[in-house]
Amino acid sequence: MDQEKHVNQSDDVHDIENEGLLDGKEIERCRSEVSEKNLSYTKPLLVKRTNTTSQIAIVGANICPIESLDYEIIENELFKQDWRSRKKIQIFQYVLLKWAFALLIGLGTGLVGFFNNIAVENIAGFKLLLTSNLMSEDKYFKAFAAYAGCNVGLAAAAAALCAFIAPAAAGSGIPEVKAYLNGVDAYSILAPSTLFVKIFGSVLGVSAGFVVGKEGPMVHTGACIANLLGQGGSRKYHLTWKWLRYFKNDRDRRDMITCGAAAGVAAAFRAPVGGVLFVLEEAASWWRSALLWRTFFTTAVVAIVLRAFIQYCTTGKCGLFGEGGLIMYDVSSANATYSAPDILAVIFLGIIGGILGSMYNYFVDKVLRTYSIINERGAVLKILLVITISLLTSCCSFGLPWIAKCMPCPTELSVSCPTVGKSGNYKSFQCPSGYYNDLASLFLNTNDDAIRNLFSTSTLKEFHISSLFIFFGAVYCLGIITYGIAIPSGLFIPVILAGACYGRLVGRLFESISSLDAGLFALLGAASFLGGTMRMTVSLCIILLELTNDLLLLPLVMLVLLISKTVADNFNKGVYDQILKIKGLPYLEAHAEPYMRHLVARDVVSGPLVIFSGVEKVGNILHALRTTGHNGFPVIDEPPFSEAPELCGVVLRSHLLVLLKGKNFSMDRVVTGDDILQRFAAFDFAKAGSGKGIKLEDLDIKVEEMEMYIDLHPITNASPYTVVETMSLAKAAILFRQLGLRHMCVVPKSQGRPPIVGILTRHDFMPEHILGLYPHINPDK
Amino acid sequence: MDQEKHVNQSDDVHDIENEGLLDGKEIERCRSEVSEKNLSYTKPLLVKRTNTTSQIAIVGANICPIESLDYEIIENELFKQDWRSRKKIQIFQYVLLKWAFALLIGLGTGLVGFFNNIAVENIAGFKLLLTSNLMSEDKYFKAFAAYAGCNVGLAAAAAALCAFIAPAAAGSGIPEVKAYLNGVDAYSILAPSTLFVKIFGSVLGVSAGFVVGKEGPMVHTGACIANLLGQGGSRKYHLTWKWLRYFKNDRDRRDMITCGAAAGVAAAFRAPVGGVLFVLEEAASWWRSALLWRTFFTTAVVAIVLRAFIQYCTTGKCGLFGEGGLIMYDVSSANATYSAPDILAVIFLGIIGGILGSMYNYFVDKVLRTYSIINERGAVLKILLVITISLLTSCCSFGLPWIAKCMPCPTELSVSCPTVGKSGNYKSFQCPSGYYNDLASLFLNTNDDAIRNLFSTSTLKEFHISSLFIFFGAVYCLGIITYGIAIPSGLFIPVILAGACYGRLVGRLFESISSLDAGLFALLGAASFLGGTMRMTVSLCIILLELTNDLLLLPLVMLVLLISKTVADNFNKGVYDQILKIKGLPYLEAHAEPYMRHLVARDVVSGPLVIFSGVEKVGNILHALRTTGHNGFPVIDEPPFSEAPELCGVVLRSHLLVLLKGKNFSMDRVVTGDDILQRFAAFDFAKAGSGKGIKLEDLDIKVEEMEMYIDLHPITNASPYTVVETMSLAKAAILFRQLGLRHMCVVPKSQGRPPIVGILTRHDFMPEHILGLYPHINPDK
Repeated sequence: MDQEKHVNQSDDVHDIENEGLLDGKEIERCRSEVSEKNLSYTKPLLVKRTNTTSQIAIVGANICPIESLDYEIIENELFKQDWRSRKKIQIFQYVLLKWAFALLIGLGTGLVGFFNNIAVENIAGFKLLLTSNLMSEDKYFKAFAAYAGCNVGLAAAAAALCAFIAPAAAGSGIPEVKAYLNGVDAYSILAPSTLFVKIFGSVLGVSAGFVVGKEGPMVHTGACIANLLGQGGSRKYHLTWKWLRYFKNDRDRRDMITCGAAAGVAAAFRAPVGGVLFVLEEAASWWRSALLWRTFFTTAVVAIVLRAFIQYCTTGKCGLFGEGGLIMYDVSSANATYSAPDILAVIFLGIIGGILGSMYNYFVDKVLRTYSIINERGAVLKILLVITISLLTSCCSFGLPWIAKCMPCPTELSVSCPTVGKSGNYKSFQCPSGYYNDLASLFLNTNDDAIRNLFSTSTLKEFHISSLFIFFGAVYCLGIITYGIAIPSGLFIPVILAGACYGRLVGRLFESISSLDAGLFALLGAASFLGGTMRMTVSLCIILLELTNDLLLLPLVMLVLLISKTVADNFNKGVYDQILKIKGLPYLEAHAEPYMRHLVARDVVSGPLVIFSGVEKVGNILHALRTTGHNGFPVIDEPPFSEAPELCGVVLRSHLLVLLKGKNFSMDRVVTGDDILQRFAAFDFAKAGSGKGIKLEDLDIKVEEMEMYIDLHPITNASPYTVVETMSLAKAAILFRQLGLRHMCVVPKSQGRPPIVGILTRHDFMPEHILGLYPHINPDK
Repeated sequence: MDQEKHVNQSDDVHDIENEGLLDGKEIERCRSEVSEKNLSYTKPLLVKRTNTTSQIAIVGANICPIESLDYEIIENELFKQDWRSRKKIQIFQYVLLKWAFALLIGLGTGLVGFFNNIAVENIAGFKLLLTSNLMSEDKYFKAFAAYAGCNVGLAAAAAALCAFIAPAAAGSGIPEVKAYLNGVDAYSILAPSTLFVKIFGSVLGVSAGFVVGKEGPMVHTGACIANLLGQGGSRKYHLTWKWLRYFKNDRDRRDMITCGAAAGVAAAFRAPVGGVLFVLEEAASWWRSALLWRTFFTTAVVAIVLRAFIQYCTTGKCGLFGEGGLIMYDVSSANATYSAPDILAVIFLGIIGGILGSMYNYFVDKVLRTYSIINERGAVLKILLVITISLLTSCCSFGLPWIAKCMPCPTELSVSCPTVGKSGNYKSFQCPSGYYNDLASLFLNTNDDAIRNLFSTSTLKEFHISSLFIFFGAVYCLGIITYGIAIPSGLFIPVILAGACYGRLVGRLFESISSLDAGLFALLGAASFLGGTMRMTVSLCIILLELTNDLLLLPLVMLVLLISKTVADNFNKGVYDQILKIKGLPYLEAHAEPYMRHLVARDVVSGPLVIFSGVEKVGNILHALRTTGHNGFPVIDEPPFSEAPELCGVVLRSHLLVLLKGKNFSMDRVVTGDDILQRFAAFDFAKAGSGKGIKLEDLDIKVEEMEMYIDLHPITNASPYTVVETMSLAKAAILFRQLGLRHMCVVPKSQGRPPIVGILTRHDFMPEHILGLYPHINPDK
């Protein structure tokens, strides 16, 4: 390889093959100035490229861009032949397996969702029963000790799981899944250990009384289950199966993870259609109609599994779990007629809800940045932080109800008041018989039951206005300070809880002019908060519909969501986008930034470019693999193999490693063609599981072999997507994003120059990179 | 322009600028053999290219590929400067107007939907009242004459509107809207006259008692309203507004039409979320999250408008219209518990429903092809066909109920039996007092009421099993033979009607083992038929949910849809895809066909290629515009303007015409740059309304001007998307489709050759074209 060719190549700085090398630290690379004369750069490229995308790395900062969606990158000659030679039966197997996997993902996620429900209800129910029994015996301190003790114990267990086994399992998981589906594979985010911790950590965390939900973790769980299946089982535990190798490519794996994420939402909210729409609107970056179809199947399976189990549990065989059907918070009994004053109240509710929602995002961002300083100092501090928050939560939950006055039980009631021995609307707490403590009914319940209480219809006066104020303030703040601690924690439930309370409050404020039921106000309040934080529309609408079964209120829910999202969008971005940014994941937006229109593709390519010849010396390849972290290398044909130098294609690092491992070298510089692939099995080049691919150290190349040659043509992707160097950067970015590429070749416009100018990767389109090169560009222009 | 350059260029054979020239006839163009030596075609390109995509043209065959979604094609220097110089207030105006338009589309479509409802209910109600009054006086022949006379009159009026004013308004309209959103603009499909006929023709057609629906026409109506707004009003009637010119581009227009289509579904089914999902799943080819958001807003407006009007009508001020809330066919009162035998019944229902649905598609296809022969012979035959079908329908509706035996009214009823003076479950027809005719209740009702009757719950024995059989057979056949006649006719309602009847039948068959309500069986039957014909999943699920308010049945509906779609997919394609194909619209599929992997881009480029120089002689341009129908021409810079020939970009026919009209020619061959644009206003190059652009005949170029030069650089799109000639055709197709291109340049791989090999357009990716060039390729391989 000629050394002059080391010119100008961008690369993926974060790469899983470089584990430990680039761990969150900033990398500086000197750029050699471009030697081309014809290029007229508006600014010299001699700048240092720093890893500016990663400000704070909460979860491990090792990220690996996923192979391009560009399916045929693996369809070079080897695979084409292989595909053709496959029998029809194999293609049938492939299609059948796809559906079988969707079924398995649905079954698995449905089971986990049911397990989560039953475990939380039983653990938390036991804890709350213990507390209320002690309270009824007037042993207040003992009750608090039992309550706080249980909470801290459960919280510490969850934190320990998280801190020692799988740090990646902390948090919601939705941003990471979103990033994965965008093409960024954060380190160990879908590993089996993460799955384990996510399932049990979530159960422990929710049972511990934290203001956290299980839906984010469920989405992550679904994605992990899908990934586990997609990797073809676990090689470690000898759980592999020959057929599964068909799915060892990024596209099939990504499809399965999309299904898994949808199944997660479906399991968490018992909302199958909502799950499909959630991945469509929020999670997935690429979408095909075939995927819609398969996702829909998966969530249907989840719905059927859940319904079967819930029906089984109505017989009372599931301990404390058993109440409630497929609808989690049914409000359909409420009379949903509304008129002009109601709509005014709802518009007011939407505006304030949007503001409060965006404030929520703002504070979550600040708290996350603060916590990340603590969390980075080690596992012990992580656990201590969790215990602190747990104690704080226990104090709030147990302390604040003392402020509330005892309220007399309503006279005409179908349920018992105060509720004894099970979760319910009317907790007695310290009150005498015939009275109930409305704040305790909210605080000393599981989050699900608290939401159900807030959504309950025809109970306008059940909660005193001051109690609602106190609960709203407490939940709003606890929700903010809880997200970011080292437990699996979803954001939906805290937001719904705060929003429902806020909605009921607004309902009380407007009770003179609005005749809408307080439960419906709670629902609209939850919608406004969700719109203000998550910024979704259709999927939230359907999820709320499936949660509450209130089709008649749909126009109002749509109105509230539209208003709150519009208001909140003026202040900041959605909460998941914020978290993505804090974590430093290089997420590619679907649209190009306006300033990209003033740049062309060659303005952002960065070097040095490492080029291989079509028939290359083994030593040169090895040297390039050792000295760079690049994942893709352009291959060029030169005389005598072609009349003039021409671009042959792009070769991947992982394929090079497999080829070198095969050691089919030749003494002379000749085109050997596909013969050298004879000794490889069809799936040797398939995508390996994370950390399982061949590493550079695994190669054992002798000194005499270093001078030999190898023909790269058989493993070169001969149809790379290319853009001309003068292509507008905005258009290049759209091409890159729409087709889901990993490498894009930039070719020269004029003739007589080397046939490739550079390679563009994900990082070259990051605003931080571009604005670093051209600081004078004002992104707001 | 050198004549040697006439080499190799594909073109859009169907083009609106060529009106009348290509009207459905096959065009033959000789291809000059490629003169390049380096190219090694696997097959010589000297073949004749015929318009093989258009087998039968029912609606006018003039189609016009829409400008690429590639937004920056209009963002050459002129527009860039213009955009930069715009004030912030203008951008604010633009954004505000977008939302205002969404609001207007929602309002307009909501109003039309309401008007449609109220008109149909009153016209059809009057007709049915007249008939039943005559029947109650035992004047059977008079009753039949009145009934059939009304029907034929209404049908003839609808057919006359359709045949004389806007032939494009016949049929569903959904395939045409789908094609438009894919980038194919069928002639006058969105014209104001089409809108007019669609609205009134649909009202007349549905009132005439045909087995047709209003939802397809509503979708088309919504799209037309959006297009009317998007064109910036009508210049003819001086209804233009300066601001509206911002929207004179294909992308904004396409976005608005997407919103319009969603609004149409929302108005037809009172299903706002269903509307969004319908366009997302079925209609739209490209999707952005911003669009989701705007579509959602539009359908929310529709829902609110409809709800307000419906609430107003409950006071009885809307004539015979007044019953029913926002839910059209409420089944929520039914007890939706189910167990294993029910699920078995449902699986059976889904399988048979899928088979019957795909048979429906098969017959619709055959009938359409037959009718097109009749319809092509002129307006009178069209109207006669409509009258024939109308008479047939009247005979069935009035004649078949005589077969049914009179059934005694049930004793415990809240409604009166037989129903008098309004639509209802129990029509007396010829029966004595205290008895009702169940077949008449289905036949002598509007389609909406018949569906409501079939969906009615807790009425297992209301319809005799033989009546259901007769009605099912009649509706299934009438639905098939009605689609294709020259009236606006939707497919949803016939399919739902037949499906609901089928479902009730299955319910009766399984009544011994299944305890599911007959109304729920009807719903599941409708779902299975819809899945079998339309092949949608999530959107149908939500539309059915919004139609019937039966959230608890959701898992079963999902199951049925999955089964029936899977079964039906084995036989043929969805009904809209079939109609698209019959109409010969060159619809681009989202995926590449497998055989495309064995071809490369240069294998399908076809000529002759017409190339312009950067500074070109006026006479050459004029000659090229006259002799070819191409819409895009590559522009090449040659010495002395560059060192070697290089591709400068692509220039559009419409822009060339505007430039030539400006007459800013120069005597010498010099680069004049952007100065020549000084005399153009910013929006002179904006997309004109259909038929309103500058035509070749409008140009008045003098003989001495023919020898002068003009600089094409300022109007050239300097960043065209390009592919290398050796790019796999499958990958080129995906690039073309994903980015929504109209022209894609194919550039040579090796150096020293002319810088462009050819231009690929939509037609080059059509299977008919490719398989015409390479007949030995077996597409089934």
